[in-house]
Amino acid sequence: MALIVTGTIGIDTVYTPAGHAEKILGGSGTYFAAAASFYGPVRLVAAVGEDFPPDHRALFGKFPSIDLGGLETRKGSRTFAWGGKYHANMNSRETLFTELGVLAEPPPPVPQGYRDSRFVFLANTHPGVQMGMLEQLPQRAICVADTMDLWINTAKDDLLALLKRVDGLVLNYDEAELLTGKSNSVTAGRHILDLGPRFVVIKKGEHGALIVHRDGIAALPAFPTEQVIDPTGAGDTFAGGMMGHLASANAKDPGEFDTLRRALVHGTVVASFTIEAFSLDRLLKLTRTQIGERYDEYVRMVRV
Amino acid sequence: MALIVTGTIGIDTVYTPAGHAEKILGGSGTYFAAAASFYGPVRLVAAVGEDFPPDHRALFGKFPSIDLGGLETRKGSRTFAWGGKYHANMNSRETLFTELGVLAEPPPPVPQGYRDSRFVFLANTHPGVQMGMLEQLPQRAICVADTMDLWINTAKDDLLALLKRVDGLVLNYDEAELLTGKSNSVTAGRHILDLGPRFVVIKKGEHGALIVHRDGIAALPAFPTEQVIDPTGAGDTFAGGMMGHLASANAKDPGEFDTLRRALVHGTVVASFTIEAFSLDRLLKLTRTQIGERYDEYVRMVRV
Repeated sequence: MALIVTGTIGIDTVYTPAGHAEKILGGSGTYFAAAASFYGPVRLVAAVGEDFPPDHRALFGKFPSIDLGGLETRKGSRTFAWGGKYHANMNSRETLFTELGVLAEPPPPVPQGYRDSRFVFLANTHPGVQMGMLEQLPQRAICVADTMDLWINTAKDDLLALLKRVDGLVLNYDEAELLTGKSNSVTAGRHILDLGPRFVVIKKGEHGALIVHRDGIAALPAFPTEQVIDPTGAGDTFAGGMMGHLASANAKDPGEFDTLRRALVHGTVVASFTIEAFSLDRLLKLTRTQIGERYDEYVRMVRV
Repeated sequence: MALIVTGTIGIDTVYTPAGHAEKILGGSGTYFAAAASFYGPVRLVAAVGEDFPPDHRALFGKFPSIDLGGLETRKGSRTFAWGGKYHANMNSRETLFTELGVLAEPPPPVPQGYRDSRFVFLANTHPGVQMGMLEQLPQRAICVADTMDLWINTAKDDLLALLKRVDGLVLNYDEAELLTGKSNSVTAGRHILDLGPRFVVIKKGEHGALIVHRDGIAALPAFPTEQVIDPTGAGDTFAGGMMGHLASANAKDPGEFDTLRRALVHGTVVASFTIEAFSLDRLLKLTRTQIGERYDEYVRMVRV
C-alpha cells in the first residue's frame, strides 16, 4: 500500500566524538525515505534549492524504491542546511547553524498522483504545514506525525489542532514532558492521548521507546550497540522502518496495538544501523537480509 | 538454597516531589531482604545501633522469611542514618546528610550457621568489607556484588581485587562509565568482564537494565509505571528479586545467561512495586500473586 512522507532534505555538517563530516545528505524526509524503502515504495514530498548537489540527488536512486516525483527543485532558492555537534555521550547535541533556505518558503504541494496515499508520515516541520499536507491526503488509512520542542514552544495551537486529526504522534521523551508538563513518560503519553491521537510513540534515544496506546503500553529497549558514529537520523529512520513495515504488512487496522509494536521493532532495528556511520553511509550498504538477522538478534536480546 | 545478603540498615529521611517521610526504615540490606523474602528465606548480615527503634525491627518480621540471626545490635553505637532529596524527574537525588554510625566501625561477622550459604549478595559498601564477607562464605555457588561511585573514586584497588573474585557486578550506568571510562554501556560492560566477573548488570533506573554476560547481551526495560512516590530502594529490591528468584529456582548453573535474564525480570517487577510508596510500605502489602500478575503484565508489555 502506498506510503508517503513529507519532510525535509538537508545538507548537514556533523561533529561527533567519533569524527566529523561536512555537507553530507541529511534531513528528516531523506532519512525516513531511505529506511522505509527497504520495505516497499515510498513517496517523498520535499523541496531543495538550486544548489542541491547532483551527487546527493543520485544517492536517493541507490535505495530500493524512493519515488522522487514529489521532490521540487526551486530556482533561486537554497537547500536547508544544518550543522550540529554531539556531546561526549552522544545523547545530546547543540545546533551550530541553521540555514532555512526553502524551509522559509511555502511548502511543496502534494502531487496529484500521490493523493491516493494510504500510509502517511508527516516528518517534523511546522504543524501548520503538516496540517496542510494531511488535508491533501484524503484517502489516508493512517497518519502519524513527528514534532519537536520548537513547535511546542512557538506553534502550540497549530500542534493541538493537528493532534485532533492524526492517528499517532512520535516525539522525544523530553518533548512529551514539554508538551504535557508531565515528567513521567507514561503519564505524559496518556495526556497526549487525551489530545486526540490513538497512540503516541515516545522516543528515548539509546534507552529505546515507549508506545502509549489506547489499548495498552509497550516498552522497547534500543538495540544495544557499541558502534555509534553519528546519531543523526536515528529518530527519522526509526519512523521510516515503523511506517515501512506497516505499509508492507498492510494490516486491516494498521493502528492496532500489536501491529504497531511489531512495526516499532523494525524501526528500532533500522535505526540501529543508521547510527553506525555518518549520513546514509551504513544504510547504503544495508540489505533486507541484514535487517532480518538483526531483527532476530534483537528478539533474542529482549525475550523474557 | 540458602541466600545471604550483607548490607546496611538505615534510618532514612526522604524528600521526593510526591511528599516526604522522616526516620523511616531503609538501607541496602533491608530493601534487598524484603524483596528476596517473597521467594524464600534470606539471611541478613548487618549492624544497627542501640538507637534502632523496636518498631523498625518489628517490620522485618512482617515479611515472609527474613532471618535476623546475623543482625548485630551494638551498645553505645548509632544506626546509620541518611537523608536525601529527589529532583523533579525522580531520576537524580542529592544527599542531605549521612551519619555513618555503625558503618564507621568494623563490620559484623558472618555467623557460623550462615557459612554454608550458596547464594551471596554483597550489597553496596566498601569493597574491602565486601571482600571480607566473601571470604567467610566458602561454599558460595554464586556471588554478586553491588558498588557505587564513592568506592570507584576512593577504593578502586580494593574494588578491582573484589572483581576478580565475584561472579557478577551490579551498578548504575553512570558508575559503569566512571569505572571504565567508557560512555557506551555495552562497551563499559565488556570492559568490566575483562576485570573478572562473568556478568555485569547495568542499571538505568526508569530506563531499565542491561545484562552484559560472557554468553550474550540482554536489554530489559523497566516496568512502565505512573505511580512513582519514592525511588529509594529500587536498585536494592531489583537485586533482591533477582537473587531471590535465583535461589528459589536453584538452577544447576545460577550464573547462566538465560537463568539470569529471567531473574532480572523478577527484579524489575519487585522494584516496580517498591517505588509506589515510601520505605517498605508497598512491599509490606505485596503478595506473591501480585508479583505473578505484574510479571505476566510485564511480559505482555515487552514481548515482540
